[in-house]
Amino acid sequence: MDNQFAQRATIGSEGRLAQLFGGQLGNQGIKFSAGNPDPNSFPTDRMGTAINSVLHQTGNQLFEYQTVVGPNSLRTQLAKRMEKTADIATSADQILLTAGGQQALDLVGKLLLNPGDEVAVEAPTYVGALAAFDQYEPTYYDIELADDGLDIDQLERTLRQHPHIKLLYTVPDFHNPTGITMSIDKRQRLVQLADQYDFYILEDTPYRDLSYVGSPLPAIKSFDRAGRVIFISSFSKILMPGLRLGWVTASPTIVNKLRQLKETNDLESPALMLAAVDEFMKTNDLDHHIATLLPSYHQRLTTMIDALDEMMPKSVHFTRPTGGFFIWVTLPTGFNAADILDQVVIPQAQVSYVPGRVFYAHQNVTNTFRLNFSGVEPTEIITGVTRLTNVLIPLLSQPTTFKAAAPVKSTVQNHH
Amino acid sequence: MDNQFAQRATIGSEGRLAQLFGGQLGNQGIKFSAGNPDPNSFPTDRMGTAINSVLHQTGNQLFEYQTVVGPNSLRTQLAKRMEKTADIATSADQILLTAGGQQALDLVGKLLLNPGDEVAVEAPTYVGALAAFDQYEPTYYDIELADDGLDIDQLERTLRQHPHIKLLYTVPDFHNPTGITMSIDKRQRLVQLADQYDFYILEDTPYRDLSYVGSPLPAIKSFDRAGRVIFISSFSKILMPGLRLGWVTASPTIVNKLRQLKETNDLESPALMLAAVDEFMKTNDLDHHIATLLPSYHQRLTTMIDALDEMMPKSVHFTRPTGGFFIWVTLPTGFNAADILDQVVIPQAQVSYVPGRVFYAHQNVTNTFRLNFSGVEPTEIITGVTRLTNVLIPLLSQPTTFKAAAPVKSTVQNHH
Repeated sequence: MDNQFAQRATIGSEGRLAQLFGGQLGNQGIKFSAGNPDPNSFPTDRMGTAINSVLHQTGNQLFEYQTVVGPNSLRTQLAKRMEKTADIATSADQILLTAGGQQALDLVGKLLLNPGDEVAVEAPTYVGALAAFDQYEPTYYDIELADDGLDIDQLERTLRQHPHIKLLYTVPDFHNPTGITMSIDKRQRLVQLADQYDFYILEDTPYRDLSYVGSPLPAIKSFDRAGRVIFISSFSKILMPGLRLGWVTASPTIVNKLRQLKETNDLESPALMLAAVDEFMKTNDLDHHIATLLPSYHQRLTTMIDALDEMMPKSVHFTRPTGGFFIWVTLPTGFNAADILDQVVIPQAQVSYVPGRVFYAHQNVTNTFRLNFSGVEPTEIITGVTRLTNVLIPLLSQPTTFKAAAPVKSTVQNHH
Repeated sequence: MDNQFAQRATIGSEGRLAQLFGGQLGNQGIKFSAGNPDPNSFPTDRMGTAINSVLHQTGNQLFEYQTVVGPNSLRTQLAKRMEKTADIATSADQILLTAGGQQALDLVGKLLLNPGDEVAVEAPTYVGALAAFDQYEPTYYDIELADDGLDIDQLERTLRQHPHIKLLYTVPDFHNPTGITMSIDKRQRLVQLADQYDFYILEDTPYRDLSYVGSPLPAIKSFDRAGRVIFISSFSKILMPGLRLGWVTASPTIVNKLRQLKETNDLESPALMLAAVDEFMKTNDLDHHIATLLPSYHQRLTTMIDALDEMMPKSVHFTRPTGGFFIWVTLPTGFNAADILDQVVIPQAQVSYVPGRVFYAHQNVTNTFRLNFSGVEPTEIITGVTRLTNVLIPLLSQPTTFKAAAPVKSTVQNHH
């Protein structure tokens, strides 16, 4: 019977997300493949206090059915914070609380995408968004990334050719997987293009507060006058991913529809988690907590960039982010990062990264990979980059090995 | 732009689930419209203990990213319990933990249903399942309910006419909204028909342990040899709905696919809630807890049946469940339960019920309604039924009022 699955469930049947989990590393392994915040930074005791406080205050009612909208008080705090940190004018009733950013991505795909609908995505882009959208069977158009964000001229050419593009998905701040940030100028031009060509913008911002040099830029949503920007964020990177708590702000019409779709999806998120985060934000300064995270992540970032600068051969390019969790590496044309990982890097260097293929809508680029620095101690970063470059250098000087059958080219313009 | 929503998001745009929440009741209101367990039965203190215990044991790791599968220990406990209480042979790796039963319904719809795929449903059936399936745009076939479960002869006739039916959805135990339980004989015949006509059975069992007279029957899944029965249950009614925790057991192929779809949906459920329920089940006897619920719910059920027997006019029919949360009422042909609720029952009697229309796939039956007894104290049940019948009796004797323009007939065969 199992050939009777729906079409959507047979697409990318290996599972894009499953590809994030690479081969097994031994005890001496150094994992640059994760995308995790540092668990040592978690305010677990204070969250425990918040949990006990709401258990004590609310009792049985905390475990009854609630409504899908969740606590007004939490949404009010989020609305005020978005105004302060992202220049977004919104209100509690224009916010939907979601099961992490991932549920928000899925709900937006469900709301907007008929099979075949045209979606513009960065190439590369966040794999979880592609996994969510894949199920709604869109047609993807790749937009390349420059150092200051997506190539807006290429986007405009693509829009001229495909004027029915309905949605553009972007991670404008410390982009996953590349770490690239979109300039203010491009944010404004993007909204102008959306007005001109009438498409939605999905602005996904899990890393926007993790800026290690200077302040975050105003959100794309802050330039939106027509209600066409859907802004998603999450507590996963700035507080703790296990909370499974994200949020969306968008026009009232869109938020209403997303609310109905969430209700159909899971009725509501667990009241205890929502109440605990609400209480945490009332009794702790979230922005102060975020500020305490930055020095350590900044140190890890600079440690990795310095190590790459020192050790990586000149033919290998990598990005130089100023925030977030990731650095993006591009090997010379033709080298296959997945084969190199499995056959050389894991067995010989006991280091892991995520081969870049999975971050492309069409999975058609093979010479790139993602390095995570946020979850690895500085000394381990140095050791890991040393081991990685020690096996990469001889390999890259033997141009016939590990080349893909048909040469493919990275679509990202990277720094060295 | 808002006319650009996907087709699936414009179906039943009022939202089936929204229709469950009726008009406003005053202070003296008696709510038979809810579907809630009694919050006074919640083991909130013991769950608080379990939460603190796992916070203490696991610390920061509890708030890291986990994997979508969730704790093996909880799935092992569930597998053992299903074997004991439902005759289902399963194992931890054939169980997916979900965000309540609702997420499981949505994931199964997503896995199986292409637009236009044929689905057989009980008429009436659980509104949350219809809301989930609606999004995948199936073609529904109604199967009527007899006192001992769905009309299996009608199902067979429907299958002969529509041999491509892919899925049958049923709530076999103390059905929502009718309270009807499917006989063992019908459970066996249903699996035989599924083998013969090659369709999946989705067995949804949130109420199966809430049997007030005798033991629950073996699950339909217990007769399944071909791996075509997908069994869903939930902690919402037997423990607490605010946990937002349900589970699915099915064939390895199906569970694997559902796991991928859940990952795409929300990555994973909050580890704290999963660990807390795991710990609760280790340190408390869940079946003993359920046993403590039964006397009070049984008393509420008999109180409501006695009150209806005593006060309801003979022209009104109602079911006589032996478990669950609901009694289903059928007015004489032609009366519109929704209009009567809004115009008479709420304003004059300050009582609410759920008009039955929303529980039909085609929303084509208007003379039925659902009464909840589990959430209402016995004295309130008597007061509520008294007030309800006091306004219904004169109304039913005036046959021209509140009749639908075109007479419609209930498709449920009820007792008086």
